[in-house]
Amino acid sequence: MQEGSKETLPSLATEAVLVKSQAMPEGTPTVRGYDFGEGVDYHRLLQSYATSGFQAQNFGRAVEEINRMIDCKMQPVADENVKEWAGHPTGRVGSNCTIFLSYTSNLISAGVRETIRYLVQNNMVDCLVTTAGGIEEDFIKCMAPTYVGDFALKGSTLREKGINRIGNLLVPNDNYCKFEDWLIPILDTMLQEQNDKGTLWTPSRMIDRLGREINHPDSVYYWAHKNNIPVFCPALTDGSLGDMLYFHSYKNPGLVLDLIQDIRAINSIAVQAVHSGMIIVGGGVIKHHTCNANLMRNGADFAVYLNTASEFDGSDSGASPDEAVSWGKIKPNAKPVKICAEATLILPLLVAETFARRQKEFTSPTPRAETKDTG
Amino acid sequence: MQEGSKETLPSLATEAVLVKSQAMPEGTPTVRGYDFGEGVDYHRLLQSYATSGFQAQNFGRAVEEINRMIDCKMQPVADENVKEWAGHPTGRVGSNCTIFLSYTSNLISAGVRETIRYLVQNNMVDCLVTTAGGIEEDFIKCMAPTYVGDFALKGSTLREKGINRIGNLLVPNDNYCKFEDWLIPILDTMLQEQNDKGTLWTPSRMIDRLGREINHPDSVYYWAHKNNIPVFCPALTDGSLGDMLYFHSYKNPGLVLDLIQDIRAINSIAVQAVHSGMIIVGGGVIKHHTCNANLMRNGADFAVYLNTASEFDGSDSGASPDEAVSWGKIKPNAKPVKICAEATLILPLLVAETFARRQKEFTSPTPRAETKDTG
Amino acid sequence: MQEGSKETLPSLATEAVLVKSQAMPEGTPTVRGYDFGEGVDYHRLLQSYATSGFQAQNFGRAVEEINRMIDCKMQPVADENVKEWAGHPTGRVGSNCTIFLSYTSNLISAGVRETIRYLVQNNMVDCLVTTAGGIEEDFIKCMAPTYVGDFALKGSTLREKGINRIGNLLVPNDNYCKFEDWLIPILDTMLQEQNDKGTLWTPSRMIDRLGREINHPDSVYYWAHKNNIPVFCPALTDGSLGDMLYFHSYKNPGLVLDLIQDIRAINSIAVQAVHSGMIIVGGGVIKHHTCNANLMRNGADFAVYLNTASEFDGSDSGASPDEAVSWGKIKPNAKPVKICAEATLILPLLVAETFARRQKEFTSPTPRAETKDTG
Amino acid sequence: MQEGSKETLPSLATEAVLVKSQAMPEGTPTVRGYDFGEGVDYHRLLQSYATSGFQAQNFGRAVEEINRMIDCKMQPVADENVKEWAGHPTGRVGSNCTIFLSYTSNLISAGVRETIRYLVQNNMVDCLVTTAGGIEEDFIKCMAPTYVGDFALKGSTLREKGINRIGNLLVPNDNYCKFEDWLIPILDTMLQEQNDKGTLWTPSRMIDRLGREINHPDSVYYWAHKNNIPVFCPALTDGSLGDMLYFHSYKNPGLVLDLIQDIRAINSIAVQAVHSGMIIVGGGVIKHHTCNANLMRNGADFAVYLNTASEFDGSDSGASPDEAVSWGKIKPNAKPVKICAEATLILPLLVAETFARRQKEFTSPTPRAETKDTG
Repeated sequence: MQEGSKETLPSLATEAVLVKSQAMPEGTPTVRGYDFGEGVDYHRLLQSYATSGFQAQNFGRAVEEINRMIDCKMQPVADENVKEWAGHPTGRVGSNCTIFLSYTSNLISAGVRETIRYLVQNNMVDCLVTTAGGIEEDFIKCMAPTYVGDFALKGSTLREKGINRIGNLLVPNDNYCKFEDWLIPILDTMLQEQNDKGTLWTPSRMIDRLGREINHPDSVYYWAHKNNIPVFCPALTDGSLGDMLYFHSYKNPGLVLDLIQDIRAINSIAVQAVHSGMIIVGGGVIKHHTCNANLMRNGADFAVYLNTASEFDGSDSGASPDEAVSWGKIKPNAKPVKICAEATLILPLLVAETFARRQKEFTSPTPRAETKDTG
Repeated sequence: MQEGSKETLPSLATEAVLVKSQAMPEGTPTVRGYDFGEGVDYHRLLQSYATSGFQAQNFGRAVEEINRMIDCKMQPVADENVKEWAGHPTGRVGSNCTIFLSYTSNLISAGVRETIRYLVQNNMVDCLVTTAGGIEEDFIKCMAPTYVGDFALKGSTLREKGINRIGNLLVPNDNYCKFEDWLIPILDTMLQEQNDKGTLWTPSRMIDRLGREINHPDSVYYWAHKNNIPVFCPALTDGSLGDMLYFHSYKNPGLVLDLIQDIRAINSIAVQAVHSGMIIVGGGVIKHHTCNANLMRNGADFAVYLNTASEFDGSDSGASPDEAVSWGKIKPNAKPVKICAEATLILPLLVAETFARRQKEFTSPTPRAETKDTG
Repeated sequence: MQEGSKETLPSLATEAVLVKSQAMPEGTPTVRGYDFGEGVDYHRLLQSYATSGFQAQNFGRAVEEINRMIDCKMQPVADENVKEWAGHPTGRVGSNCTIFLSYTSNLISAGVRETIRYLVQNNMVDCLVTTAGGIEEDFIKCMAPTYVGDFALKGSTLREKGINRIGNLLVPNDNYCKFEDWLIPILDTMLQEQNDKGTLWTPSRMIDRLGREINHPDSVYYWAHKNNIPVFCPALTDGSLGDMLYFHSYKNPGLVLDLIQDIRAINSIAVQAVHSGMIIVGGGVIKHHTCNANLMRNGADFAVYLNTASEFDGSDSGASPDEAVSWGKIKPNAKPVKICAEATLILPLLVAETFARRQKEFTSPTPRAETKDTG
Repeated sequence: MQEGSKETLPSLATEAVLVKSQAMPEGTPTVRGYDFGEGVDYHRLLQSYATSGFQAQNFGRAVEEINRMIDCKMQPVADENVKEWAGHPTGRVGSNCTIFLSYTSNLISAGVRETIRYLVQNNMVDCLVTTAGGIEEDFIKCMAPTYVGDFALKGSTLREKGINRIGNLLVPNDNYCKFEDWLIPILDTMLQEQNDKGTLWTPSRMIDRLGREINHPDSVYYWAHKNNIPVFCPALTDGSLGDMLYFHSYKNPGLVLDLIQDIRAINSIAVQAVHSGMIIVGGGVIKHHTCNANLMRNGADFAVYLNTASEFDGSDSGASPDEAVSWGKIKPNAKPVKICAEATLILPLLVAETFARRQKEFTSPTPRAETKDTG
């Protein structure tokens, strides 16, 4: 068992392994996690994430970035900027930082809806961007519940029972039938207004109307309507709403849903913002649409991404904040953060450590200046 | 070194490890990869994927599924079905299987554009669904090239140089300036037609017009126009086209872009299809929109998904085909396949093993019956 | 704008969309997230995850599963089982549930180390499985800190400075030099003992010795030694420890590190466990090794996986708990849970909602019965 | 419908959108995919990947990197380097570039085994690193087949039938019983040799012995033995081999399996290599072990990673080549490539475009200089 004993240790190896290091810059934080020996204090635990590494570290940085957005929002608006707001397309009185909150439809299907509703109800965000399911599932939940399910339930069995699966959630198909009963008469009225008053409907105007009609405190869009927070959803026809608009186009044809006034509206909000921040949860259209609007102002000042997508496939969904910097969608001097994580786990904690802890600062809700009607 | 020698081997362990197995069902294929000892024969190599396991196995199953779509397409249409086609919204003469091809914008930015163009030019697919970048990047490439870059290039440096990054690709910002010069006069004409003839523009009608205007054989949408293949893109304003429509709304206001006639059109194509197949490359709106249209016919007969998303986050992007079965978007007796892979690597190979090998079968292109103009 | 008005709505579409649903089984929980209107109560927030969907739902299920492990552990051991424990290979007095905690090395590099140390210090787990870095980084942190860094720091610049990157963490190379200074004399002593007393060293015996030598309350393995919790690491040479063993094989040749007594030891722990639970954080060897040991007892009774890997590539890292059931590694009637998430974000919260809330139940630490020496 | 007409277009927006760009550096390749109009020519198709973007682009770069490894290997060894090889631990006559091929066990379970066998049989690679399953599944396949299965098969049903699932593959448990029958007598002989001749067994020596014993041309390790290509597998006990070694430790106790001589052997191969290249397929121990050995020579000259892991979780599995540069595991001036993709899809194509096209260059197989026996 004395193999190799005669040979000498290659100096190449020791030199490579035992390279000397330069000193770390003063003040570089050291890695240290939460000490449960001090008991379970969740706020301190979550604060410790900033020095814990990997995505916990990004969580810590995102908390800082969102708190910077709120700090900025709480500053008084400089006089020259106030003027500009007179022409705000939504009539919403502006603050020093316009916060965009964007999210995919699955988050409204999930319990994250309650977190989003809280932010909207309390006027903590200024502009929403989502997809069709992100609109309709909110209304449908005011009519009938979504249920806890399982990823492994078999599709053909569920179809026989008329139960739709969204990941590990279940939505009985009857919920969509109830939605139809509620929606179709509203579409009739909307068509009537188009014909009578020349209203040009857009997705955001339709969502605002539906928010008014649902009149239910559980609904995100009820509060968006109340607080005059615009909601953009360019592909509004991509879901149950589209099914209903398709049916309606036979039953009572003629309704028009225009995209151009909405791209103008969202871009105007970005341009007129004194500062802007983006909180984008998920990928696809909601991410790109928010970033693209912020290109119009030569970049957002603050940005937090929270999603599960990777950049390797060249999709915008997985693109890093630094890719957005190359396009002018985020300012070069910003400190954007991406958390690679699933939102149901993380968004409530992010809100808990930022907006919810600072709820008192949002005491004077930004009111609707004056309802500027469509058309 | 005789530790443990006195103890007896626990029978629990041997029984658990050495469980006897039942015979496998007759004819179950055994796993075996390609033997390079036979030389490099790519077609046989790719055929061997069916028994190689993991995603190679799914590739093999996807080749079969697409070949089933093509087989179905090549069957004569039964008489009672032919009649129905008279009312086809696009005026495109139908086949026995309507194939939807859906893809995200990054694939048009990448070299996959040439593969998609080939499929459209040769009338191999019947309906396209994409996002805004999937439209505009095709036209822009007719004006100026996209360049090979690197994922690690720094955003702020690129912004200074006016160069935009898409993953490891680079697009000089001048390309978008050229696009503006080309597009704005077309928008003027479109507005003129709206005012003069009452044209109601929709995304698909606008894309068809742009395909006619680009008049360039490299363009996917030139061939879509030529071959009367409709292209749906509900969020058409989410990109450079949206920037231009926003600018145009100041320069020459009034253009309307309606979503409702398009949801009616795509749903009608699905409803009127004798059979339908979906090839969906990527996630987000393009995936959901195609599946949702196929719900209108109580499910697609064939489906292949190719994407990098996972189902754990409850997004539709990562949802398995079996989730779509629960909604009635894919038929319960279909044999849908999802390949978990990045498309630039796999889509060309999938086309090589299916459509391209069978190009001769597509000799009699499905012509435009009669251009049905917007109205 | 009256297009399509003359046609009738296809009944195929309405029938497909408006399928009636069967009633959900009584008691199916409905989806509902936390209401921040009630203030920020983290425990209730995390409890709400069980009905929030996607991975939050899996988090809720994992909390239940770990609490079941602890409940089982707290039950008295039946008489016939106590006897068996006399021959326990580690001399550790058993409980009614043996909990395996397995984790990859990056978690010891990160602040999760403090969470793991807490579990070991308080005798909450019974057996550890990790990789080489998971051992050495713990010791090195007793000598010099790991620093907060950034994923984007350039490799060649860091190498010039002698600073090593682990994700967004930084470890100065001097730390490894300090480790060498500490380790080499211990290796000399180990060799001496091998030669003098016939000690047959294995990875677990070496880790126990190093835990004794480090004698530092921050160290996971100091507490593992104190509490007689065995630590398995079959590939112990795959890291800095391997570098040092390689150097030592020239300086002072002859040390032997045996794998066979360790596979016997970990399998014996599984076989002799009255019940067993697995908490596996990450993939690779640590995951497979723990599951494989539990095959020896025809399956673990409880299992929680926490990792970021997907099953599509056929790796064991991404394999679902149900794949382990097919092998007999998890019992068919168990309720295993996989959380798809990054561990720095989730493991501390999982511990907070289970072990840490129940710390008082672990008052009587499971002592070392009698140190059974190697050899 | 003349909304917004009175306002002027914000110059902020036009300036941000229409930023002018600097010229691209001369010679920057433009993005262009394969033109199927030229027919299906797979080699040209795969060559086009270099300018197609995203992972296709990385595939193109990996083909170049592997071809650089082969070019380097084919160069004559400088005289001063030849001398060094006299002391090569495996007795294998060296070439100018030592190529490490590392892969996880699932690839041996899958049909990629045939590709790996081809590389080993033809002496195209010089050193293998894998995990326990990567060893035993190769031998087992010489006894009974692995079958094509499905990811969705239920674990409890399979366990009842004694059929084990690996992703979408199935292995009847009887295969492992056959493996036991074959292996146990070999272990007896190995123990005999240990006792009689003082053989110190290590994982690599055991694998070499098993390769000799299996004596089957389908086996990777038969050819590794024939061609004197060392195979490293530090965690060799983590699988069925471990089960058998555990059983054997009761039936016929005393066998020792040493790790230290193996870490010395793999490090020596790296140190003595004139140049080195790494092809690493998958993550975990096999990736780290190969890179760590190359640290001993202050970095590999060439590196290709192929895996599905992401860097966001700080695991070494997902770490980029640039992280390895910071450690000195890859040379700072190397051009390493990571392809983010699943290996069954990509490894055969990568081999087809490199080693297999250049098979003739490997005509004079690197022979075993002289078998240096264990002990």
